[in-house]
Amino acid sequence: MKGFVFDAYGTLFDINSVIEACKYIIQDPEGFSKLWRAKQLEYTFLRSLMERYKDFWEVTEDALTFAINSFSISVSQVERKKLMETYLYLKPFAEVADALRHLKNYELAVLSNGSPMMLNTLLENSGLKHYFRYILSADEVRTYKPSPKVYALGPKYLGIPKEEIFFVSSNSFDVVGAKAFGFKVGWINRSGTQLDELGMKPDIIAITLEEMSGALGL
Amino acid sequence: MKGFVFDAYGTLFDINSVIEACKYIIQDPEGFSKLWRAKQLEYTFLRSLMERYKDFWEVTEDALTFAINSFSISVSQVERKKLMETYLYLKPFAEVADALRHLKNYELAVLSNGSPMMLNTLLENSGLKHYFRYILSADEVRTYKPSPKVYALGPKYLGIPKEEIFFVSSNSFDVVGAKAFGFKVGWINRSGTQLDELGMKPDIIAITLEEMSGALGL
Repeated sequence: MKGFVFDAYGTLFDINSVIEACKYIIQDPEGFSKLWRAKQLEYTFLRSLMERYKDFWEVTEDALTFAINSFSISVSQVERKKLMETYLYLKPFAEVADALRHLKNYELAVLSNGSPMMLNTLLENSGLKHYFRYILSADEVRTYKPSPKVYALGPKYLGIPKEEIFFVSSNSFDVVGAKAFGFKVGWINRSGTQLDELGMKPDIIAITLEEMSGALGL
Repeated sequence: MKGFVFDAYGTLFDINSVIEACKYIIQDPEGFSKLWRAKQLEYTFLRSLMERYKDFWEVTEDALTFAINSFSISVSQVERKKLMETYLYLKPFAEVADALRHLKNYELAVLSNGSPMMLNTLLENSGLKHYFRYILSADEVRTYKPSPKVYALGPKYLGIPKEEIFFVSSNSFDVVGAKAFGFKVGWINRSGTQLDELGMKPDIIAITLEEMSGALGL
């Protein structure tokens, strides 16, 4: 392996922080944030297929609008802004900084659906930015994961063949897409979910980044 | 309007028939069939984006495997086959035959994700086949709705410009995709669901095909 490419949301950063922020505006914060996240992902798939790209910040706002209407709640502009901004202040999982430090002799990059503004702000706010040589966004190719066009940004920027890049994600669809593209893939299955039946299997399954490093003998 | 193009599953045919068949193998047939359907759709989106097409029969089988594993049940080969075959014997909604008869002076077609085998068998079994001049499957272009490549089969076969084709679907993502492509679109919102926030609105919303014909002044 010559380089490591990381997904952001759910992999480095805990999107459950969003539930916390929803607590103040809705009685069922878990249900609400689950619907918000599901629609956010669905809209990235649908917009890619429809060839009607909008960036991830806008897609996240549209998904929030859907969730608000679905729960029939009224949300002020200030609350809406606050909910959106949780995406700029997500907490990294406990082991992330140590795990990245451990890999400091490799080329490291983030490759995410997030817009450049979202990714740069989040990495800055979390203090993790300096670990990464490249912060790569699907925005550059105006389509979303699991399109091979997005994964191709990895070898393009790192200058390393895809077979020598280890891609790390906690999202099943992302694991499958990255594997189909040709990366070596580690699935950080933090919550014990089931792999999707899409004919692809990760090379390594681990519960944390630390465990993954161990499994790779690093 | 010179022609009408219909989605199949959920629009002409009641996919709730699947719940009935699941009753014999699982205690929560609604939850099970809901997950099965959700994964079936998700896999069409993901396979299209990954550029790893498999036909709709195979995708439906893969989604069934996911649902079976997710519910931790054991299902015999005979039961599995029976579950899959419900897709070949779905019941049309009550008003469908009358509504199609009413439109007999127009060019009518079905345009669905279903494989040619699935669509032909279902239309044959339901006695609706003779209403349609064309039975068009996403299989021809090896990708799924809401890709514009799939909708383009409509004008191609009917020989009518897309602006003069009225596309009818009950599925929100399909309504949005067909509208983005350039069809006139009717949303048969049978269950009162919420339109997705994807920047597109149908021309007509109705609860049944009959109501839609009325709204078009036919």
